[in-house]
Amino acid sequence: MEFFYAHEISAREVFLDTDESAHCVRVLRHRTGDEITVVDGLGTMMRCRVTDDSPKGVSAEILESFPGWGGHPYSLTMAVCPTKNNDRFEWFVEKATEVGVDRIVPVIGERSERRVFKPERSRKIALSAMKQSLKACLPLVEEPIPVKDFILSPAVEGDSPYLRPFARIGSRSDREQEGLVASTAVNEIKLICYCFEGETERRSIEDVLREVPEGSDITVMIGPEGDFSPQEAQLAVENGFIPVHLGPSRLRTETAAVTAATAVYLHFMK
Amino acid sequence: MEFFYAHEISAREVFLDTDESAHCVRVLRHRTGDEITVVDGLGTMMRCRVTDDSPKGVSAEILESFPGWGGHPYSLTMAVCPTKNNDRFEWFVEKATEVGVDRIVPVIGERSERRVFKPERSRKIALSAMKQSLKACLPLVEEPIPVKDFILSPAVEGDSPYLRPFARIGSRSDREQEGLVASTAVNEIKLICYCFEGETERRSIEDVLREVPEGSDITVMIGPEGDFSPQEAQLAVENGFIPVHLGPSRLRTETAAVTAATAVYLHFMK
Repeated sequence: MEFFYAHEISAREVFLDTDESAHCVRVLRHRTGDEITVVDGLGTMMRCRVTDDSPKGVSAEILESFPGWGGHPYSLTMAVCPTKNNDRFEWFVEKATEVGVDRIVPVIGERSERRVFKPERSRKIALSAMKQSLKACLPLVEEPIPVKDFILSPAVEGDSPYLRPFARIGSRSDREQEGLVASTAVNEIKLICYCFEGETERRSIEDVLREVPEGSDITVMIGPEGDFSPQEAQLAVENGFIPVHLGPSRLRTETAAVTAATAVYLHFMK
Repeated sequence: MEFFYAHEISAREVFLDTDESAHCVRVLRHRTGDEITVVDGLGTMMRCRVTDDSPKGVSAEILESFPGWGGHPYSLTMAVCPTKNNDRFEWFVEKATEVGVDRIVPVIGERSERRVFKPERSRKIALSAMKQSLKACLPLVEEPIPVKDFILSPAVEGDSPYLRPFARIGSRSDREQEGLVASTAVNEIKLICYCFEGETERRSIEDVLREVPEGSDITVMIGPEGDFSPQEAQLAVENGFIPVHLGPSRLRTETAAVTAATAVYLHFMK
C-alpha cells in the first residue's frame, strides 16, 4: 500500500506535484484508470482513479473519502530544542511522525548550542514519514522561536483533525472551524521535561499522563543538551507547564523527545 | 560527568584500553592523581584515582564501588530483525541502550531482506551509548540467528544485574550465580510484535504489560520489513510468545523495536 500526497484538491479531483507525479508514473508505473490512494495532509485519505498520468502532473478523480484517517485521540505539540547534530533532530521528526504528532516547534533555549534552524528538511522528512506510516495528517513543522517566546505564546488549538474521535472533516475551513470549537472544548495540558540537578518537584511523565483524558491538547517541551536554564524552567512553571521527568535513564535530547511522544501514544493505547 | 569503560579489573585496580586511555589522557587531559568514573559493563560504577596516565594504558585505583548502577527493575531481551539499512538498526541499538535493554539478538526471518549481520559496529554503539547515558551495564549484542532457532532456544536468564532491585553484585562469577538464582525466581514473559493482516487475536503491548511485575525477564521479538511469516508467528505462539500489537500506527521495524523497549521502560516508571 502506497500513499500519495496531494498539494491541490478540488471537490472531485486531486492533483499531485512534480515529485509525487514522477514517483507515481515513472517509479510505480501507474497509468490512467489505475486506482491510487491519496492523502491531503489534513486528515483525509482518498481512494482515487488516475485521469491524467503525466509524470509532470498527475490528476485523479476522487472515488471515496475517509476523513480522520490514521489519527489519534489527542493533539500533540512537541516543542524541542534543535540538537547540535541536525540528523538527530530530523530523526526525532521522523519517529514522532510515525508514532503520532501534530505540531513540532523548534525552540531555541538560552543554553542551546544550535541557535539557527531551517525547517525545510524536517518538513520533507515529516511528509515522507506521514506517507510511509500511512497517516493522512501532516505534522506542522514551524519556524524556530526562543523558548521564552514559546512559553509566553497564547495556546494554539492543536492542528489536529483527530481531537474528537470520528470527527468528520471536509475542507480546510470546515476543519479550522472544528478546531476552534475543539480548542474551547478540549483539556489543555503542558509539560516541561526538565533534568535540572537537584530539582525535586518533578513527577514522572507516566504519573502525570494518568490524569489526561482522551481529546486532550498536549504540549511537551524538551530542552537542549545543556537543559533549560533555571529562568526558563521557572517561567514555564509560572505559565502552567508541569515539570516532569522521563525516568532514571539519562536520555539525549532527541531520545527524550521521542520517549515523551511515545509515552503519550502508549497512554492512549487500549 | 564522563564514564570510562574498563576492560580489565582487578580487586583494587582498573585498566583502560588504548582507545579509552587516549580519550582519558589526550582529550580530557586527566593526569595521575585525578579522580575518574569507571564502569565495568556488568552493572558496577567505580570512583577511581588515576595511578598511571599513559595514553596507551591508563590504570586507576578503585576508591569506591556502586554495584547495580543505572539499572532497571527488569531484564529485557530485544530480538529484532536487522533492517535493510544498517543505520536504522544501529539507531535502534543506541536508543534501546539509552532507554534500557540487556540483550539484543539480531534474528533473521524468512522474509528478512538482510540475511547477513555483523555485530561489531552495533557493539561499539552500545558501548558508547551506555557511557553517554551513564549506565554501568553493557547490553549484550549477540551473533545473528534465524527467527525459528531463537523461538526454540531455551530461555537464557537475562544477562542483567538488575533483575532483583538493590542486588549487590561483586565479581562476574558472583553475578552469574545471582543470574542463575534469579532465572529460576523471576517471571518470564515473551512477546511477538506481529502486524500480520487480518490477525485478530493480538492484544496491545500496553494491555499485556499491565500484568507484568517488577523483576520480570521480558523478551520482545520484532519482525523484518515484510513481517514474520505465518509459520514463524505460529511457531512463536506455540512456544509461549504472546502476540501483541503496538497500536494503530504503522511503524518501521526499528521504530517498533524502540517503541516496544520504551513501553517496557515506561511501564516500570513510578
